[in-house]
Amino acid sequence: MNIENKTKAQVLIDALPYIQKYADKVIVIKYGGNAMTNDELKQAVMSDIVLLSLVGIKVVLVHGGGPEINDMLGRVGIESRFVGGLRYTDKETVEIVQMVLAGKVNKDLVSLLHSHGGKALGLCGLDGQLLLAEKKQGDVDLGYVGEVTSVNVDPVLDALKDGYIPVIATVASSKDGQVYNINADTAAAQIAAALKAENLLLMTDIRGLLRDKDDEDSLIPDVNVSDVPYLKSQGIISGGMIPKIDCCVEAVRRGVHVTSIIDGRIPHSLLIELFSNEGIGTLLH
Amino acid sequence: MNIENKTKAQVLIDALPYIQKYADKVIVIKYGGNAMTNDELKQAVMSDIVLLSLVGIKVVLVHGGGPEINDMLGRVGIESRFVGGLRYTDKETVEIVQMVLAGKVNKDLVSLLHSHGGKALGLCGLDGQLLLAEKKQGDVDLGYVGEVTSVNVDPVLDALKDGYIPVIATVASSKDGQVYNINADTAAAQIAAALKAENLLLMTDIRGLLRDKDDEDSLIPDVNVSDVPYLKSQGIISGGMIPKIDCCVEAVRRGVHVTSIIDGRIPHSLLIELFSNEGIGTLLH
Amino acid sequence: MNIENKTKAQVLIDALPYIQKYADKVIVIKYGGNAMTNDELKQAVMSDIVLLSLVGIKVVLVHGGGPEINDMLGRVGIESRFVGGLRYTDKETVEIVQMVLAGKVNKDLVSLLHSHGGKALGLCGLDGQLLLAEKKQGDVDLGYVGEVTSVNVDPVLDALKDGYIPVIATVASSKDGQVYNINADTAAAQIAAALKAENLLLMTDIRGLLRDKDDEDSLIPDVNVSDVPYLKSQGIISGGMIPKIDCCVEAVRRGVHVTSIIDGRIPHSLLIELFSNEGIGTLLH
Amino acid sequence: MNIENKTKAQVLIDALPYIQKYADKVIVIKYGGNAMTNDELKQAVMSDIVLLSLVGIKVVLVHGGGPEINDMLGRVGIESRFVGGLRYTDKETVEIVQMVLAGKVNKDLVSLLHSHGGKALGLCGLDGQLLLAEKKQGDVDLGYVGEVTSVNVDPVLDALKDGYIPVIATVASSKDGQVYNINADTAAAQIAAALKAENLLLMTDIRGLLRDKDDEDSLIPDVNVSDVPYLKSQGIISGGMIPKIDCCVEAVRRGVHVTSIIDGRIPHSLLIELFSNEGIGTLLH
Amino acid sequence: MNIENKTKAQVLIDALPYIQKYADKVIVIKYGGNAMTNDELKQAVMSDIVLLSLVGIKVVLVHGGGPEINDMLGRVGIESRFVGGLRYTDKETVEIVQMVLAGKVNKDLVSLLHSHGGKALGLCGLDGQLLLAEKKQGDVDLGYVGEVTSVNVDPVLDALKDGYIPVIATVASSKDGQVYNINADTAAAQIAAALKAENLLLMTDIRGLLRDKDDEDSLIPDVNVSDVPYLKSQGIISGGMIPKIDCCVEAVRRGVHVTSIIDGRIPHSLLIELFSNEGIGTLLH
Amino acid sequence: MNIENKTKAQVLIDALPYIQKYADKVIVIKYGGNAMTNDELKQAVMSDIVLLSLVGIKVVLVHGGGPEINDMLGRVGIESRFVGGLRYTDKETVEIVQMVLAGKVNKDLVSLLHSHGGKALGLCGLDGQLLLAEKKQGDVDLGYVGEVTSVNVDPVLDALKDGYIPVIATVASSKDGQVYNINADTAAAQIAAALKAENLLLMTDIRGLLRDKDDEDSLIPDVNVSDVPYLKSQGIISGGMIPKIDCCVEAVRRGVHVTSIIDGRIPHSLLIELFSNEGIGTLLH
Repeated sequence: MNIENKTKAQVLIDALPYIQKYADKVIVIKYGGNAMTNDELKQAVMSDIVLLSLVGIKVVLVHGGGPEINDMLGRVGIESRFVGGLRYTDKETVEIVQMVLAGKVNKDLVSLLHSHGGKALGLCGLDGQLLLAEKKQGDVDLGYVGEVTSVNVDPVLDALKDGYIPVIATVASSKDGQVYNINADTAAAQIAAALKAENLLLMTDIRGLLRDKDDEDSLIPDVNVSDVPYLKSQGIISGGMIPKIDCCVEAVRRGVHVTSIIDGRIPHSLLIELFSNEGIGTLLH
Repeated sequence: MNIENKTKAQVLIDALPYIQKYADKVIVIKYGGNAMTNDELKQAVMSDIVLLSLVGIKVVLVHGGGPEINDMLGRVGIESRFVGGLRYTDKETVEIVQMVLAGKVNKDLVSLLHSHGGKALGLCGLDGQLLLAEKKQGDVDLGYVGEVTSVNVDPVLDALKDGYIPVIATVASSKDGQVYNINADTAAAQIAAALKAENLLLMTDIRGLLRDKDDEDSLIPDVNVSDVPYLKSQGIISGGMIPKIDCCVEAVRRGVHVTSIIDGRIPHSLLIELFSNEGIGTLLH
Repeated sequence: MNIENKTKAQVLIDALPYIQKYADKVIVIKYGGNAMTNDELKQAVMSDIVLLSLVGIKVVLVHGGGPEINDMLGRVGIESRFVGGLRYTDKETVEIVQMVLAGKVNKDLVSLLHSHGGKALGLCGLDGQLLLAEKKQGDVDLGYVGEVTSVNVDPVLDALKDGYIPVIATVASSKDGQVYNINADTAAAQIAAALKAENLLLMTDIRGLLRDKDDEDSLIPDVNVSDVPYLKSQGIISGGMIPKIDCCVEAVRRGVHVTSIIDGRIPHSLLIELFSNEGIGTLLH
Repeated sequence: MNIENKTKAQVLIDALPYIQKYADKVIVIKYGGNAMTNDELKQAVMSDIVLLSLVGIKVVLVHGGGPEINDMLGRVGIESRFVGGLRYTDKETVEIVQMVLAGKVNKDLVSLLHSHGGKALGLCGLDGQLLLAEKKQGDVDLGYVGEVTSVNVDPVLDALKDGYIPVIATVASSKDGQVYNINADTAAAQIAAALKAENLLLMTDIRGLLRDKDDEDSLIPDVNVSDVPYLKSQGIISGGMIPKIDCCVEAVRRGVHVTSIIDGRIPHSLLIELFSNEGIGTLLH
Repeated sequence: MNIENKTKAQVLIDALPYIQKYADKVIVIKYGGNAMTNDELKQAVMSDIVLLSLVGIKVVLVHGGGPEINDMLGRVGIESRFVGGLRYTDKETVEIVQMVLAGKVNKDLVSLLHSHGGKALGLCGLDGQLLLAEKKQGDVDLGYVGEVTSVNVDPVLDALKDGYIPVIATVASSKDGQVYNINADTAAAQIAAALKAENLLLMTDIRGLLRDKDDEDSLIPDVNVSDVPYLKSQGIISGGMIPKIDCCVEAVRRGVHVTSIIDGRIPHSLLIELFSNEGIGTLLH
Repeated sequence: MNIENKTKAQVLIDALPYIQKYADKVIVIKYGGNAMTNDELKQAVMSDIVLLSLVGIKVVLVHGGGPEINDMLGRVGIESRFVGGLRYTDKETVEIVQMVLAGKVNKDLVSLLHSHGGKALGLCGLDGQLLLAEKKQGDVDLGYVGEVTSVNVDPVLDALKDGYIPVIATVASSKDGQVYNINADTAAAQIAAALKAENLLLMTDIRGLLRDKDDEDSLIPDVNVSDVPYLKSQGIISGGMIPKIDCCVEAVRRGVHVTSIIDGRIPHSLLIELFSNEGIGTLLH
């Protein structure tokens, strides 16, 4: 008798309640960071997603693509201009963004999912008018940076119904056809909310929300959205964590059951988060 | 980072190609032997079946119930009469068989599958006239021992379509309503053939087909049905193995892709057989 | 010209408004008493049910099986113990009850319906967790006598949708898998209520509710549920009639349109009750 | 106990095998003769049809309307002109035919079926181009008398699928829109053939095919289509019976299972023919 | 390059927003007047309707047939009797009305639509009990003139679902089967209301509502239903226009989005009204 | 009365037989050339496509994008290398091709179709593995130029079923994930063949096949595929016309009913070709 096989079987059996829990549920994954640039992590994410999809979970993959955009901007010689610390997106830049996100990153992910045995469809906000956007308002003019004004879930639901994993690049256009670059975290949260998703998972390069940002062991595993203002006032939620937490809060408020900020640097972090009772990172509900 | 979680994730990912391979396929499992009398093994089988069902496999469970029948016959004081070495089934006995198989063993399995999170329906050959039988012909009169003359797969397909795991007790009636006791291995093979199942798994209390029946290490992992006559002539297929192998050969001839004789004494033998490239026991194709 | 044929045709035409009235409606029949022990009556009931089913009525058959249970208990030498006048059901007894009801009586009825040209499926409370139960509370401990805590109509609706007559044996289990014996009248009423049935017919061995219990001509054909307390106070509803009437009242209160207590000793009492304007027995609404 | 009720129930039970036999089958009825002019017979036919429809038979009613046409022609003062013994149909006449058949007889039948609890839809050959026709060829010019060149069963199947009894008036048009009067017997046979009907019933005013046309007791209950030439040569099939038998032969040759010539003067002849083992009139198969 | 083709293409492109606007919407057309008696106009109306139907609009055609009724009444020698200025409809007349409308006008329109490539089904109020009516109440007894008491849209929706253009003759019966003649304008408005139609178009022989009835240039293109009382008080809505406007008001009040009174004397008035931004005639909303 | 409206209506009515002819048929349009670079022509093509789609035609749009690719290659400083007169596609180039076609041209077309009221979905050969390719074989090594080895029509049919206009960029990958640039004419022909399309329309910048290539009036409107070898031998099919004609021949041979080479420089050439009896350009069948 094979000891290893017994262990394997036990692992599969242990996954049973989680598979039952998520069967037929919609889970939105915001993919980015190291998990997207490190090839080994990338392969692990793709196989995780195909597995989740095979056991009956309706996975929706939303992605950004900062490094590939920067690389392309460099190649065409567009220098990044910053306004108040934020990157200004001019007409030329937004065209490059669209091309790289919707034509390169998006379709490469589709191809990779197929090579792992999945069935995927690459969409962007323009397809079936999935995302409508307008110029982001604010104190500083950031050019063609937009914010989503409405989400049309039909193309996503059509893809899911037809058995595809929808992969979504977050460029969107206004009603008059002007394309805008959209923050992928925000778009993922809005798509999750519009789909009334069971989970929104934001893959990041940090351990989660840390009580002491220099101590990875100080992870806060679980946050109630009503505690967010206090955690901000204490500086525990600060810096780049603020917009991520805000996305999560907004998603939960609009009907997403649970959102998690997970550490994409850990291989198979998606499976571990969804299929074990420990979880990874910080969960907001 | 959690080492154990990495292993867990890897096991799940390793199962991916097998889940893909069997998705939406029909697998008929003949359940019996130690796996049915030993409580720990029984729980393991039930959780295996619920898992297989959850990842999209259409599992059909066919069972016998010798020990529980013997126990009940003893309680009502029916002495077993043997004719030419085979048990004679009189009118009183076949009634007890029906009661125990269709009322006790069958419904207990249904209940057990529910306690593991599955959704099951207990059928016997009488339901929707799933199995029609007539008196088994032969040199010796065995009384109400029958052989299946036709399989109506509709009740099984209806149950699968409605999301149930069909659990089948192998009693059947003739057209004029006489009930017969049916050998469960044979019935499972005929049901598998009628369903054009992908796999037929016969759970037994032996390692598989052994080249030397006293040496468990002499397992023959793989047999082509065309080699069966030779193996019989060599005495390698002999004794109780003959009818089991004959069932498998018949099933393969009638369109079942693969049949396996697996060792039910190994916990989670179903998962190991289906979800690893080693397999357990002997495979006929 | 054939006089008899004219009569036949007239009878069929007279049935027309009743067939129209019940088309596509759910009717739950609690089957028991003489109609179940007398073979001629039994054949008549079976042909009635197949006819009702053919003309488009969704018949659900719920049955007990007291005499067959008693017979089997006798054969295995279990003596009936009574507590406060009620039979105590110990562990051994409840196992026999399950075997006899779900394995013998239930499947024999399924077989009989098939021999009359029907298409039937034998279910018990364990199948698809149709009935969940817990130990019946009360002054006296009756052992494994249960009461239904919830009815899951899905297995019944699935069977009806797939064209089967569902035949239901009233054993049920608790959430932790303990099996209980359930009173068939009560279970039938609860199933009828959960299905929002048009009719609940309780087949009994009496004429109906009698104003004078020694005078069969004193039948009360029609009772409004609001009059039940008065009829009880007058002793007109008394003895074994009390629980039957209570079942009916409960079913009507929970949405069953009409319930009837009919005399199963009359051949074809089901057809006469449903397809004539006289009716048989006592109707509660 | 009510003796009459027992008889009623028995009649219903006796109908069971016939209801099973015809369930979901298409039966085409050519309605005409006394059964259409005598009001009592008419009501009986309508209730028969509604009953057949309720027990699951797909009834298609095809009708003529000679007497009402003659009446209307009289009122508008059109004199019937005969050519070689056959009525010549001029332009004015065919307009009256269309009006009376499709507007009066047809819609009155629809209304009558509703008053018996049925659900009917009145069609003629023009609706959905159910019947295409051209001028009937022959030695004598009969004017606008047509013969069917193609049957489009879609409007009939649509009506059946949507739960209506299709009632069909046999006027038809050519491709260029010219309307023709079509013999109703022939049209019924062609519609039955196109529908691959189980039965075609021609309602007439005679007992059936008689061996001796003056002796109603000499009825031939059963004719094999291969015997028709011999019966014609013997003069047993003669006169007005020839075209009716020819319709039946053609229908059987093109796939209708059974055709019957029944005596519409007998009340409920449809029910007696279909729901008893005696039958009425002469059956061709 | 072909100038004319450019123009053609432009016209088609200009129709695009209108096709989009009405796609899958229900439009009820009351057909009558010159557009029905003038053959050229009639052909134009038929091709308009087939085109509307092909581009995805659910067209329902409701028609009267005064001239053809008068003609037939003349031929059978029925003299029109007037009561208080209104035609009295006796039993004989209502029979002629039914025959002409449902058998002649209706089926001829069906045939004509087919000759233009459409697919149509001719219905009257009796089919599927589409319209139930009772005797019209009022100061003068007009005989068999009825008013609609209920509209059953099922036959209309069934026809639309199956791809037919429903053509409706406005005769209806009471529950006891008495047929009544129904004003076609009123019936069209009630059918439109019951269907929650997007548009109701009444085809007339006038330019629309005129401020000065002798000046066709004084057309009022657009009326809000709340202005109707004032327009009546001013005598602008007067005479035969009153009942037409009342139909429109009633339809709008019961959920029809827009109603129009259009000039049927203009060829292709339906297309011009629906597919241009000018419109024809007077629109009420 | 408005003269212009009459003309408009007539144009619409004239389109009727063409709309009927193409209803529910699949038409594949290869879009390219001036019609894609000239903004006015582009808007005309988009409105044509939306109109075709609205009247029930299943339009599939396949596009190239040479000028935009060249522009981008220029911006990133990739110099075009030619081998035997053909452009060599290195790794860097194929990445740019994918980005521009699938991310820019494709999604811009999707957006443009939406701005004309259509509903579109942007796909490339990677989505749902719509196109599988391998390196193009030949005498000269052209780098990452591929040829299609199989077409999976499922993503196209899914999009059509869900109501989208599929817009397809012709990049494809091999089974091991290597991306290849595919000639858009060839891909369009293979997609049309796999879809068993009614029509394949290749939009070009020439009048069609000219008997004398310097005389636009020498257009050959109609070519039978069996005449192609002769026309090649005569030099009438020569130069850049050869591969286009070869695509058409291949498509016709594999089941496409008709293919046309049309002059994309003419505004609304699609509508004129499909909706008039003149047609534009050269038709192969």
